[in-house]
Amino acid sequence: MDYLVQSGDTLTGMEPSTQWTTKGATTRARIVEATADAILARGIGGTSLDDVRAATATSKSQLFHYFPGGKAELVRAVVGLQGERVLDAQRPALDALTTWEAWDRWREQVLAHYEAQHGWGCPIGSLASEAAGSDAALAAELVQYLRHWRDQLQAGLETMQADGLLRADADPERLATTVLAAVQGGLLLTQTEQALWPLDAALEGALATLRSHAA
Amino acid sequence: MDYLVQSGDTLTGMEPSTQWTTKGATTRARIVEATADAILARGIGGTSLDDVRAATATSKSQLFHYFPGGKAELVRAVVGLQGERVLDAQRPALDALTTWEAWDRWREQVLAHYEAQHGWGCPIGSLASEAAGSDAALAAELVQYLRHWRDQLQAGLETMQADGLLRADADPERLATTVLAAVQGGLLLTQTEQALWPLDAALEGALATLRSHAA
Repeated sequence: MDYLVQSGDTLTGMEPSTQWTTKGATTRARIVEATADAILARGIGGTSLDDVRAATATSKSQLFHYFPGGKAELVRAVVGLQGERVLDAQRPALDALTTWEAWDRWREQVLAHYEAQHGWGCPIGSLASEAAGSDAALAAELVQYLRHWRDQLQAGLETMQADGLLRADADPERLATTVLAAVQGGLLLTQTEQALWPLDAALEGALATLRSHAA
Repeated sequence: MDYLVQSGDTLTGMEPSTQWTTKGATTRARIVEATADAILARGIGGTSLDDVRAATATSKSQLFHYFPGGKAELVRAVVGLQGERVLDAQRPALDALTTWEAWDRWREQVLAHYEAQHGWGCPIGSLASEAAGSDAALAAELVQYLRHWRDQLQAGLETMQADGLLRADADPERLATTVLAAVQGGLLLTQTEQALWPLDAALEGALATLRSHAA
């Protein structure tokens, strides 16, 4: 969250927020957070600007002051916020997945984070699924977050391969994709079952797959 | 599809379509199919009854003749159609996953089906994700399809355990969940990357996890 307010240099190159005063930036961030919650609950298609105004007690002119581009600009800001949130929730483990112990810590961190989310799915996965068929530009932004996420998993595996922990014939990109798919699919089943165990089972399976390539 | 038109005895107990003449049933099925396509592209929230009327060249009164309950009833019919389609696409392999060769055939069948879908995600997974936060009754119907799907995977593993192909300490329910999560997460990444290899990688990983429990 701090990242979004303090700097415009996010992954997808959002406009710098230095154009706002501190108070303005706070108000803007509050609107983005409330919209993120609404979209998590009802999807992009199910969230109107009137919903956002009601949830944040802002006027129409205030909303367009902060988001001249209207709903599209607001949704892009939500994507930026959720993209950073999802990756931040996995840090610091995500930045150094270079030992088997680090992968176990990462798994615990992911489970703890989503347990605290009370049964929501992955904000990025849900947005990506909704945007894929309806908004090519937004889908392209979302795929950048998913690739960045996979790249982090892959980087750890490449280091482990260089360090002799992972077999030379293992494919870090495919293995990282297997793990990310397990997170996404596990979260979908955790959301639909309203229970954490499907995500736990999916992650256990994915890490077992990784270990089957141990050197 | 035939299943939906010929009988109302679907998984979630939809109303019998025997109330319609053959021509009426055909028209109704055509509306459901067109709505399914629209929802696959733009989500439930992004699909209006006006969109459906335009896509099917039906009048408002015709639409309410076939779906007196309006959009909610139409969406339930789409769930029934997509639920059956998704399971049918895995048959006959899905009904007898009782050998390692059967699992390989199932994997090939899933890949071939989704390759032909031109980059859509899983209709059931996408609907479940959208309904989870916004429509408890619909979410409850969707979870039945996901459970039925998992039960089929699990039944195969239980038979393999009884036949001595899978170790006695393996947990068929968790393993089936791992495989279903791989399908769902793999399809999400296949949809966002517009390429089949993420699903392929995810399924390869999931089947490797299964085989690591071979007796």
